Amino acid sequence: MRDSYREELDDINDCLVAMANSVGSAMSTATTALLDADVALADLVIAGDEEIDATRESIEQRCFTVLARQQPVAGDLRVITTAMRIVSDLERMGDLAEHIAKVARMRFPDNAVPQDVRPAFLEAGQVAELLITKAATVIAKRDLDAARELETDDDAMDKLHRGLFRQLLSEDWPHGIETAIDITLLGRYYERFADHAVSVARRVVYLVTGERYRA
Amino acid sequence: MRDSYREELDDINDCLVAMANSVGSAMSTATTALLDADVALADLVIAGDEEIDATRESIEQRCFTVLARQQPVAGDLRVITTAMRIVSDLERMGDLAEHIAKVARMRFPDNAVPQDVRPAFLEAGQVAELLITKAATVIAKRDLDAARELETDDDAMDKLHRGLFRQLLSEDWPHGIETAIDITLLGRYYERFADHAVSVARRVVYLVTGERYRA
Repeated sequence: MRDSYREELDDINDCLVAMANSVGSAMSTATTALLDADVALADLVIAGDEEIDATRESIEQRCFTVLARQQPVAGDLRVITTAMRIVSDLERMGDLAEHIAKVARMRFPDNAVPQDVRPAFLEAGQVAELLITKAATVIAKRDLDAARELETDDDAMDKLHRGLFRQLLSEDWPHGIETAIDITLLGRYYERFADHAVSVARRVVYLVTGERYRA
Repeated sequence: MRDSYREELDDINDCLVAMANSVGSAMSTATTALLDADVALADLVIAGDEEIDATRESIEQRCFTVLARQQPVAGDLRVITTAMRIVSDLERMGDLAEHIAKVARMRFPDNAVPQDVRPAFLEAGQVAELLITKAATVIAKRDLDAARELETDDDAMDKLHRGLFRQLLSEDWPHGIETAIDITLLGRYYERFADHAVSVARRVVYLVTGERYRA
């Protein structure tokens, strides 16, 4: 237990930011593994997910200990319950990065993503990185402007996702069913990753303003 | 606020059970909507998801109020934090039922599921119902035997899911890419629904025994 209760709350928040950064690295590495059919990178992401899961447990346990020992009320209580929810989103985002790495691994030495779909996933990877980076900023600084930007960035991911379906459904999709399935699931993983980043931002907005975002 | 704090905890648990039952109805209706291409049933599920979301907010708020006013420690504190997590799983399961209903609605008046894939989704729907029914029992009675059974039932869902992929990837898949995409996503929704049911059961096991299940 740290000397000061306030320091413990700050420290938990720092851990959330560090976890968000780890998740961002995992996602960025997973995208590279996918686009380069790099099985060593894919394995790094898959092995690294255990650490992200362990971080989740550690943060949850610390939140629980603060609840039990300090019995925070009002604002501080909301800080802790928000942290417990954010940590779930972040862990799930780590799982999604792992799912992407697993698709890369499953198709190795082939590339799961055909050349003509590559630009869409390159961009999805970049949007995902942007989203998790901003989510980390939102957590670190309770930055409501960044939280608002995240909503717009998520629209970009949705647009990419729709474009992917158009490509899959074009008359001349030449890559067969197996690749179509991979692309469908990969698209879903990136989209869900983005949804969770938005969820993190909304939780912080609710913490700061008391207002829930309504889409 | 109820007279007795203990009654309030019991009442929150009853609400969780009722929510699990609502989610079960939604999933059951969504499966029927999907298999019968019944757009009226699909709309029921889609409209009903708002109520499930509202229940989530209401239960979360009640948990928060108990934390703030009663400052529970030890076992009671764990009951509340577990309820807050279970409610997230249940809400997400409601979303997945809604996703299934939306696929049925999107393909109406066509049937999203071709005749030869129908048995797999009929069974997936039955397994999903079984899982959420047992999850409700686990919440209601802290029934650890039912929790263990859930793990096995989830294996059945995984097996169904693998069978679906085999069917999609057979040489003679005659239904084209669009249907393959629908089936891929539908399979994923049922699988995730099952995962969340397992997660609910594991949270209750952890609450009762203090031991985390390791897959």
